[in-house]
Amino acid sequence: MNFKSDNEAPAHPAVLEAIVEANRDFATAYAADRYSQRLNARFSEAFETECHVLPIATGTAANSIVLGELSPPWGAVMCHQNAHIHCDEGGAPEFYTHGAKLVPLAGDGARIHPDTLGRAIDAAGVHGVHNCKPAVVSVTQATECGTSYRPAQIQALAEVSHGRGLPLHMDGARFANAVAWLGCSPAEVTWKAGVDVLSFGATKNGALTAEAVVVFGRPEWLEGLERRRKRGGHLLSKMRYVSAQLLAMLENGLWLDIARTANARAAELAAGIERSDQATLEWPVEANEVFMRADPDILQSLKTRGFEFHIWPGYDDLARLVCTFATSEQQIRDFLSALQDSGPG
Amino acid sequence: MNFKSDNEAPAHPAVLEAIVEANRDFATAYAADRYSQRLNARFSEAFETECHVLPIATGTAANSIVLGELSPPWGAVMCHQNAHIHCDEGGAPEFYTHGAKLVPLAGDGARIHPDTLGRAIDAAGVHGVHNCKPAVVSVTQATECGTSYRPAQIQALAEVSHGRGLPLHMDGARFANAVAWLGCSPAEVTWKAGVDVLSFGATKNGALTAEAVVVFGRPEWLEGLERRRKRGGHLLSKMRYVSAQLLAMLENGLWLDIARTANARAAELAAGIERSDQATLEWPVEANEVFMRADPDILQSLKTRGFEFHIWPGYDDLARLVCTFATSEQQIRDFLSALQDSGPG
Amino acid sequence: MNFKSDNEAPAHPAVLEAIVEANRDFATAYAADRYSQRLNARFSEAFETECHVLPIATGTAANSIVLGELSPPWGAVMCHQNAHIHCDEGGAPEFYTHGAKLVPLAGDGARIHPDTLGRAIDAAGVHGVHNCKPAVVSVTQATECGTSYRPAQIQALAEVSHGRGLPLHMDGARFANAVAWLGCSPAEVTWKAGVDVLSFGATKNGALTAEAVVVFGRPEWLEGLERRRKRGGHLLSKMRYVSAQLLAMLENGLWLDIARTANARAAELAAGIERSDQATLEWPVEANEVFMRADPDILQSLKTRGFEFHIWPGYDDLARLVCTFATSEQQIRDFLSALQDSGPG
Amino acid sequence: MNFKSDNEAPAHPAVLEAIVEANRDFATAYAADRYSQRLNARFSEAFETECHVLPIATGTAANSIVLGELSPPWGAVMCHQNAHIHCDEGGAPEFYTHGAKLVPLAGDGARIHPDTLGRAIDAAGVHGVHNCKPAVVSVTQATECGTSYRPAQIQALAEVSHGRGLPLHMDGARFANAVAWLGCSPAEVTWKAGVDVLSFGATKNGALTAEAVVVFGRPEWLEGLERRRKRGGHLLSKMRYVSAQLLAMLENGLWLDIARTANARAAELAAGIERSDQATLEWPVEANEVFMRADPDILQSLKTRGFEFHIWPGYDDLARLVCTFATSEQQIRDFLSALQDSGPG
Repeated sequence: MNFKSDNEAPAHPAVLEAIVEANRDFATAYAADRYSQRLNARFSEAFETECHVLPIATGTAANSIVLGELSPPWGAVMCHQNAHIHCDEGGAPEFYTHGAKLVPLAGDGARIHPDTLGRAIDAAGVHGVHNCKPAVVSVTQATECGTSYRPAQIQALAEVSHGRGLPLHMDGARFANAVAWLGCSPAEVTWKAGVDVLSFGATKNGALTAEAVVVFGRPEWLEGLERRRKRGGHLLSKMRYVSAQLLAMLENGLWLDIARTANARAAELAAGIERSDQATLEWPVEANEVFMRADPDILQSLKTRGFEFHIWPGYDDLARLVCTFATSEQQIRDFLSALQDSGPG
Repeated sequence: MNFKSDNEAPAHPAVLEAIVEANRDFATAYAADRYSQRLNARFSEAFETECHVLPIATGTAANSIVLGELSPPWGAVMCHQNAHIHCDEGGAPEFYTHGAKLVPLAGDGARIHPDTLGRAIDAAGVHGVHNCKPAVVSVTQATECGTSYRPAQIQALAEVSHGRGLPLHMDGARFANAVAWLGCSPAEVTWKAGVDVLSFGATKNGALTAEAVVVFGRPEWLEGLERRRKRGGHLLSKMRYVSAQLLAMLENGLWLDIARTANARAAELAAGIERSDQATLEWPVEANEVFMRADPDILQSLKTRGFEFHIWPGYDDLARLVCTFATSEQQIRDFLSALQDSGPG
Repeated sequence: MNFKSDNEAPAHPAVLEAIVEANRDFATAYAADRYSQRLNARFSEAFETECHVLPIATGTAANSIVLGELSPPWGAVMCHQNAHIHCDEGGAPEFYTHGAKLVPLAGDGARIHPDTLGRAIDAAGVHGVHNCKPAVVSVTQATECGTSYRPAQIQALAEVSHGRGLPLHMDGARFANAVAWLGCSPAEVTWKAGVDVLSFGATKNGALTAEAVVVFGRPEWLEGLERRRKRGGHLLSKMRYVSAQLLAMLENGLWLDIARTANARAAELAAGIERSDQATLEWPVEANEVFMRADPDILQSLKTRGFEFHIWPGYDDLARLVCTFATSEQQIRDFLSALQDSGPG
Repeated sequence: MNFKSDNEAPAHPAVLEAIVEANRDFATAYAADRYSQRLNARFSEAFETECHVLPIATGTAANSIVLGELSPPWGAVMCHQNAHIHCDEGGAPEFYTHGAKLVPLAGDGARIHPDTLGRAIDAAGVHGVHNCKPAVVSVTQATECGTSYRPAQIQALAEVSHGRGLPLHMDGARFANAVAWLGCSPAEVTWKAGVDVLSFGATKNGALTAEAVVVFGRPEWLEGLERRRKRGGHLLSKMRYVSAQLLAMLENGLWLDIARTANARAAELAAGIERSDQATLEWPVEANEVFMRADPDILQSLKTRGFEFHIWPGYDDLARLVCTFATSEQQIRDFLSALQDSGPG
C-alpha cells in the first residue's frame, strides 16, 4: 500500500483519454499545435486574468526555468530551508540560473514568515557586488510539510517582496491540493495575492507528466522563459501530449476534484492518527500529505506489514504519508488499523 | 497532407497501449520503476552487448546531457556544420557543457569525412589553453540530409577520434531509419564500429516522447550522466511512461518495422521524383527524408494544394519531405501526381 | 631580438613610476580609491563624451565581461573568424556569457564587411528559439591581421548592427595603435562611429597589466558589468595599481606616443620587406604588426639567428612580427639585413 | 588612520623593487617567463614538498578556480558560514563551479569543528541525484574571525574529509599571518596536516596583487586548473609581474617577516583592549585582525576621530580592526588612547 508519493500513483483515466484523443491526427510540432495554443485561454479562464502558459514536462524544470528568468547569475533566491528547489532538485535551480545562490530561511511548517523574509532580503545584499543580490522570492504551495499558505499570508510575503523590488514565484507542485483545501479560487491565492508566476503542477495530481509555467501579466518574461525552456531541452517536439493533459485537467475542474479526493483521504488519515495513542501529527494537515510522529519501532512495524512511506531525512520517528486520488478509504482504514495494532500493546 | 516532420505524426498504437498498460498500478518514482529497470537488459539484447540506458524525454536533452559529460566546459565538440546540435537546439549543447565550442565541419550530404575530421581536431588545439580543447566527436545517423553513414564510414571516423583520444557520440534521432535502410544490425553501426554512446531516438519514430542515452561499456560516465539528467530537470518522476514506450518499441522489433514503413514511403517518393521532369533529388534517399530540388513556383504550387513541407533555410528551391509510418502510399501517389501537374507544362 | 608579441615587452617607465607613486599611502580597496575614481573623468576627456570606465587586469576578461553583459546565454556573438575572442581566449567568452555561440565571419585582413555582417545576422536567427539569437557584434581594432578599420567602416558596421538591434563592441587590445595610425581622434573611431563599448587595451601598449571597459552612454549596462567583474574574480582589492597605470597612459597622450613609436618601427619594417626580394607583406601594415610571407627556410634561418617571432597557425611561410615602443630602429635594420642575407643567395 | 583592511595598505618596498627588476627586459608571455617558471621550485622549497604553483591576480579567483576544479557543477562545497567564499565573493565560486552549492556550517570563531563537518557531509548527499553531492571542504586560514586553526585541528578536518573522499582546500588569504602566529612551518599546517591545495595569499600581506594556487602532489588537477585560469581571464599575458612579487615574498622569508610585524601590532592592540574598560575582545587574536566589542557610541566616537574600521555586518557594537606591516606602534597607542578617552567617563 503506497503512501510514498503522489508521483507513484497512476494517472487519472481522463488524462489518458485526452492523450489518446490527441493522437488521432498529425499536429504541429514544438508547442505550435492546437492543444498548446489553447492553454493561454483556458488558464486565463481558470485564473480569471490574462495568463501566459508554457507547458513543461517536469516541476524541477518549471521551477528552474522560472528562477533562471527571474534571477541573474549573481542573484540570491530567497526560499524556505525545506524548499524543494533547495533540497531536492539536484542543483537544477543553480544550473538554470547559472549559479545563483539559494538563501534558505527558517519558518514553522515550511512556511516563511514575512518578517523573516524582510530581514533576510535586507541583510543579504548590504555589501553590493561582494554579495549575491536578492533577486526573487520563491514559496511552495502546498508546502513541503503539507501546510498551505492562506491568501493573506501570500499577500504579506508579496508585499515584502515587491516592496524590495523582488518578484514572487510560487512552486505549485501541489497547488491543486492547496486550492482545494483552502476552498478559495485559484486567483485569490496567486495573482490577487501578489504571485507573479506559478509553477502549476499536474503530475503529482493525476497527470502522466505535465506541468506549466503560468505567468500573470509579465509578458516581458516570456522570451527568456521560452529560450530557457528550449535551451534546457524542454521544448518537446510533440508537446501536444503534455498540453492535452493540462487541458483535460482544467476541463470541468477535474484538477480540483482529483485534489479534493486526495485531500479527503489525508484528512481521514489525520483524524485517525489524532485519535490514536500510537502517533501524533507533526503539522496540521492542509493538503494531501500527513506527517506522523511515532516510535521508530512502530514505523518499522508498519513497513513490515507492507505500508510504504518515507521516513523524513534526519529523523527516525517522522513518517511522511502521501494520499492521492487513487488512495481508497479502505486503505486508510487498513493503515489506521495497523497503526493501532502496532503499538507496544 | 503533412510532410513537414516525423515530429508531427501521431504515435504508434502499440506505444499508446504500453502507456495504458503502465498505468494500471502504482510504480516507484524517478526511474526506479519496473519498466525503467528493464531497459538495460532489453537494449543489451537488441545491441548484442552490455548497454547502460537512461530514458530521457527529448533528443535535445539526450544529446546535450551526453555532450556535457564528454566535453569539459573548455572543450570543442567536433560536428558537421549541418548538425542538429549546432543548428537547431537553441544552444542546449552549450548550456549543458557549460560553454563548450561546437566546431562545424564541412562535408557532402551532412556526412563528415575522416580526413576533414582529423585535420580539424589537429588544428583546433595547437595553442593549448588559448584554444578550446577537442573533446568529443558527434555524428548524426541518419544525417540531417537524409543520408546514412555505412558501418565502415563510422569506423573510419571512430579511428580518427579514438586515435586522438576523443570519444564518438552518435545523435540517433533517426537511428531506426538508418538501421532499417542499411539492413545491418544495430550493433554493426554503433559499438562494433566504435560508437561510444548513442542518443537513441524514438519520438520521431512513433513514440509520444521517448529517447534514450545508450552507453556502450563506459560505466564511468554513468554518474555524470545521471547527475546531469537530474540537474537538467529531465529525471521524470513518472519515468515509467517513457520507459514503457521504449520497451514497446523494442518488443519484436517494432522500432525497425515502423522505420521500414517510413523508409518505404520515402523510397517511393524518391523514385517518383526521379521519374519526374519537375524536380530532382538533392541527396540520395537513405532513410525517411527526401530533399527535392524544384522551381520555387512549383514548391509554392504544391503548398497551395495543401502539401505541407519545409523549405530548406537559405534556399527557395529545396524542399524537405519527411515520411512517417503514418504516411500512406496514396499520399505519396497524390503528391507525385500534384508534382507532375504543377509544372509549367 | 623579440618580435613575438607586444605582451613580451617591458612596461613603459612612466607606468612604473605611476605605480610607485600610487604606493605612497593607504587607499580604499575594491576600486573605490582616488585613482579608480578619476577614470571616468579622464576617459571622458580623452573620448570627448561621458564615459563609464571599469579597470580590469586582462583583455580576455574585459572582452568576456562585456560579451556576458551584452549577450544572453542563448545569444550569438557575431565576430570575424580570426577574432581573438573566437580563437585565442580559451573559451572565456563562452564562460562569461554562460554559453553563447560565437559566429565566425569571413573577411579580408580580419575585417568584417558590412554586407557579410548583415547577411549573417539575418540568417542566424530565422528559426526562433531553435537558433541562438544574434545579440552583439564584436570587431577588433586594430585587427588580428594588423589592419585598422577606418571610421567610416566602423560606422557602416554600426549601422548594420544597430539597425538589427545589436550593440557594437570593439576589442581594442591594440586600439592605441589603430588610433595612432589612423590619425583620427579616439572619439571618431568609437562612439561617433557607433561603437557602444570598448575594451581599451593598455597592457600590449606599455602597461604592466591594465585594460579598461569603456562604456559610451549606456549606464544601464553598468550594474551587470560590475557584477560580472566581481564574479569573475576581477575586482582587484588593490585596483589602484591598475587605475594608476591607466591614468599614466592618458596623461599628456602617453598612450598615443607609445603607439606611434611602435607603429613607426612596424612601418620601417614593412618598408624594408617591401624593398626585399626575400619576402612580401601579407596585409597592409596599419598598426604595429607586420605579416611577412617568406620561404619557410628563410623563416627558419631568421629564427636561427635569434629573431623571435610566431609562424601563423596553419601556415609555414607566414610570420607575424610585432613591434613595440621598446623595439629600436637598429633592431629593425638588423632584422632587414638578416632577411636580405637569408635568401638562397 | 586605517584599520579597515590589509587590502588598503601600500605594498612592501621589496615587492615594488622586484617589479622594477622584472621590467628590465623582454620576457615570454602567459606565465612561460623565467619568473613564473621558478615558482614551483621556490614554493617546493618553502613548503618542503613538491608543489605545483599557479600565480593568479586575486584571491577570489584563486579560490574559485580551485573550487571549480574540485567540485562538479552538482557538487556541494562544505565551508564555514562566515567563509569569504560564501559571504564576500559575489558568487564567484558558484560561477567557476558552474553552480555548485555552498553549504554553510556553524562553528565558534569561524572555525569548523570536525564533528559538525562529518555530520554535514553525511547528511548532505543521502538522496543521491536529488541532492547536491558533497565534493570538497574549504577552510580559511587565518579565519574570517582572526583565529587560526592549529595543525591538529586541520588534521582532524582532513581526516573527516578524506575519509569521505573529499579533498581539503585552504583559503589562505591571510595564510602568512596564521603561520607566523602559529610559529609552525608552512608544511605542518598544510600538506602534512592533509591540505590538498592552498590559495596562498600575498596581496593582503604586502604585495600589489599576487596570489597563488599551490597544489600539493595532485598533478591530475593541473590541466583543469590551468584551463579554468585561462577561461576566467586570469592568465595574465605579463604574468612575470605577479610571479616576481611572489618570488620577492619568498626571498629570505619576507612574507613571514611582514606577517609577524602585522601580527605584533594586532597583539599590542588586543592587549590594550583587554586592559581597557571600554571594550572587550570578541575572539582570541591569532593573526592580524582584532574584533572589538564596544558600545556603538564609542565606535562612532572613534570613527569621528579619524580611525577607520568596519562595523561587522549585522552588529552595531562589533568592530573589525586590521593591522598591517605598515601600521605603526604609535598608531596602536593613539587608537588605544582614543578608546580610553571615548568612554562615558
